[in-house]
Amino acid sequence: MVSCVFPGSFDPVTTGHVHLISRASAMFDRVTVAVLINIQKKYTISVEKRIELLQAACADLPNVRIVSWEGLLCDFMKIHNERILIRGVRNSAEFDQENTAFLINRMLNNRIETLLIPSAPEYAGVSSSAVREIASFGGDIEPFVPKGLSEEIKVLLSNNK
Amino acid sequence: MVSCVFPGSFDPVTTGHVHLISRASAMFDRVTVAVLINIQKKYTISVEKRIELLQAACADLPNVRIVSWEGLLCDFMKIHNERILIRGVRNSAEFDQENTAFLINRMLNNRIETLLIPSAPEYAGVSSSAVREIASFGGDIEPFVPKGLSEEIKVLLSNNK
Amino acid sequence: MVSCVFPGSFDPVTTGHVHLISRASAMFDRVTVAVLINIQKKYTISVEKRIELLQAACADLPNVRIVSWEGLLCDFMKIHNERILIRGVRNSAEFDQENTAFLINRMLNNRIETLLIPSAPEYAGVSSSAVREIASFGGDIEPFVPKGLSEEIKVLLSNNK
Amino acid sequence: MVSCVFPGSFDPVTTGHVHLISRASAMFDRVTVAVLINIQKKYTISVEKRIELLQAACADLPNVRIVSWEGLLCDFMKIHNERILIRGVRNSAEFDQENTAFLINRMLNNRIETLLIPSAPEYAGVSSSAVREIASFGGDIEPFVPKGLSEEIKVLLSNNK
Amino acid sequence: MVSCVFPGSFDPVTTGHVHLISRASAMFDRVTVAVLINIQKKYTISVEKRIELLQAACADLPNVRIVSWEGLLCDFMKIHNERILIRGVRNSAEFDQENTAFLINRMLNNRIETLLIPSAPEYAGVSSSAVREIASFGGDIEPFVPKGLSEEIKVLLSNNK
Amino acid sequence: MVSCVFPGSFDPVTTGHVHLISRASAMFDRVTVAVLINIQKKYTISVEKRIELLQAACADLPNVRIVSWEGLLCDFMKIHNERILIRGVRNSAEFDQENTAFLINRMLNNRIETLLIPSAPEYAGVSSSAVREIASFGGDIEPFVPKGLSEEIKVLLSNNK
Repeated sequence: MVSCVFPGSFDPVTTGHVHLISRASAMFDRVTVAVLINIQKKYTISVEKRIELLQAACADLPNVRIVSWEGLLCDFMKIHNERILIRGVRNSAEFDQENTAFLINRMLNNRIETLLIPSAPEYAGVSSSAVREIASFGGDIEPFVPKGLSEEIKVLLSNNK
Repeated sequence: MVSCVFPGSFDPVTTGHVHLISRASAMFDRVTVAVLINIQKKYTISVEKRIELLQAACADLPNVRIVSWEGLLCDFMKIHNERILIRGVRNSAEFDQENTAFLINRMLNNRIETLLIPSAPEYAGVSSSAVREIASFGGDIEPFVPKGLSEEIKVLLSNNK
Repeated sequence: MVSCVFPGSFDPVTTGHVHLISRASAMFDRVTVAVLINIQKKYTISVEKRIELLQAACADLPNVRIVSWEGLLCDFMKIHNERILIRGVRNSAEFDQENTAFLINRMLNNRIETLLIPSAPEYAGVSSSAVREIASFGGDIEPFVPKGLSEEIKVLLSNNK
Repeated sequence: MVSCVFPGSFDPVTTGHVHLISRASAMFDRVTVAVLINIQKKYTISVEKRIELLQAACADLPNVRIVSWEGLLCDFMKIHNERILIRGVRNSAEFDQENTAFLINRMLNNRIETLLIPSAPEYAGVSSSAVREIASFGGDIEPFVPKGLSEEIKVLLSNNK
Repeated sequence: MVSCVFPGSFDPVTTGHVHLISRASAMFDRVTVAVLINIQKKYTISVEKRIELLQAACADLPNVRIVSWEGLLCDFMKIHNERILIRGVRNSAEFDQENTAFLINRMLNNRIETLLIPSAPEYAGVSSSAVREIASFGGDIEPFVPKGLSEEIKVLLSNNK
Repeated sequence: MVSCVFPGSFDPVTTGHVHLISRASAMFDRVTVAVLINIQKKYTISVEKRIELLQAACADLPNVRIVSWEGLLCDFMKIHNERILIRGVRNSAEFDQENTAFLINRMLNNRIETLLIPSAPEYAGVSSSAVREIASFGGDIEPFVPKGLSEEIKVLLSNNK
């Protein structure tokens, strides 16, 4: 069985995330989505809600599970006996970031592998930070978030103002 | 008539901004400079002062008007019946940022067009954040801000300390 | 009147070119497509045929004209009394190339302006060289070239083998 | 079973290729190395020899097979019933290249997936073109090619001078 | 005598810094490490401790001295009669940053020169921010910080939580 | 004494080269300009003439010497007992190229150091290939080549047509 881990903050989940997860789920036997908790970062949406939204968004993908994690990603990998990290990349600036993350993870645990998926062009503008900024101005986030979740996400983001 | 919008924070206006605006003003029939207000961001200079400084800096450019805007840029475009956004780009890192902004704006309103102007090399180091940092150390901001405005900008930036 | 020049080799014209030209034609009063001839470069398709294909592809765009040019682009601009060059950019590697071209043109004639249009994501993979390579293997070039021209382009490219 | 295809020219195979193939072979159930033949390109080493060298270099990797292919990669994928392409990436310039290749392959066959592996830093300078250039000056290619093959590769490259 | 200045925050010093400083110390007659203090930035470790750690890490490099500085780097250069700044660069995103810093310093004082050293690949993932993040999760910072200093740095970073 | 080597093809020498060499000559005790000969590459100007032009262009720089070299750069460094290579970099695409060259040279001889100088913005568009292309169209190469050499370079380049 070939499985992989797709880590992220998912604050909130976007259509871009779901497209990457569904592509990974079609390639690998199992995909574990790791919702990261870093107490030094401030999130707009609680981890429980971030997981709930992901579960709703990935309901049709039977080989995808959603798990939260507070700590280093390389410890998550060891505990869950996973080896392959998978990350979406939209442009060369993001490549440099992900390559640096790869080099760090490799120094922490050289069994960890990183695979990068180039974003599909129709999702290359989609990101959680774009969703948060558009929502903060009362803009239409519908094209950026998974079908059926835009109302709930709008409420969650406005609570946080 | 071909008109365009040059958006930004202008916190404070720099020689780089003025050079780009004057190049745009020579190319287009009218240039609208949109001074953006985002309540989630902290500015060093008030929006009124940012507009005043821009007006002084662009006094010689008759087809340039300065307007402030609180909200999404794509709504500004719709209300003002404008189609063309124009942005300066200094290097490939900035290109990746502007390209992402283009993709987002296009998802919000596919009538919006984005044109990028490569910065003239003599202004490629100039930015509002450089001005703020130099001023915070009491350095000489004169080569970075429009002629005749450096004293006023220095005072405005030091008030904010 | 605000007019611009869209230069290139168009060997052959692609859907990406036509999309950029039609976006420019909607923004500017007139677009001049300059089909460049450089005797030091080898083209797969003759300049006459490259112009014919462009004319067919741009038939619906009344403010677009197709002109060939053998020489420096900056001389073309001077003779045709044009000031604005417009170029599509797909990624940061292309930005560095186009920025260098801008710097060179500016040294040759500082009245020339360059505006870059970010490619629409659905055309970001389309290029003349991709068309030539796909055709050389007998692949399907239809999604890459303007509607109705794929058969003619396929023949022109195979003649050149 | 999760399998992938690692395509390339391998003119000649390098330590960088072998490291990427062995990483892929540890992640996937099967790796098919596709040695590409493009009659429009000139290779320094014949396809038979390129395959032989790869077979020697990958002898210890039981789930790796070496296959040659003349044609479009997307046709290879269809005929061999493979879905996943895997490519090494060393830096942001290479990312832009591979992302363009991904976009092209996706237009030709949207079932094809591309995964990028960031090169291990110790191999980031290794490439076939570096090997060819060093050999052309009589330099020491040993750190760049798989153990035990440097003598044979040196002879093959010098024959081609 | 050819001397250079290696500026930075060193919050905390890493193996990457020490490798760059030792490479500079082998090239130049004297290296002055400038530990920058910017009251608008928050550091995790006090400037006294940052200097102490650097002194311990560079104890074997006789031509290296450690100096702190609160102010613009270009003023430090003038006062210390230094001309050459030296900075490590890991990837193209960092190049764009350092190139911008070069352009700014040149506008402030055109006698200042900037030289960039490409990071050795084995240190390309190492950075102060990586050390801080790993430490915040209780991870193993030993491969990232100079030999013998990991315990002290761990304590300093945990005090700051 | 701190000396460095500035390698290149100089086909032909440009104002950009001379600016970099003069900056290096002000920083280092001695600069050796290595004019590279690679029999697999075709040059437009003979090596003798390339050296002559460089000598004329650097006549005012007493600590600069011009030397030709046919072979690997790392062998040149060893024979001349030099350790420091110096290369100009104009943008992030060139950084990726130079970083790769650094990694290769380091594998061939780990005593070789590479320092990169960011190009001054006023020379960022200048390159030998731009000079050759402009000359091939009969354009004005004067702003691109050292003072007093444009006539001779024009003749040399036209001989080669």
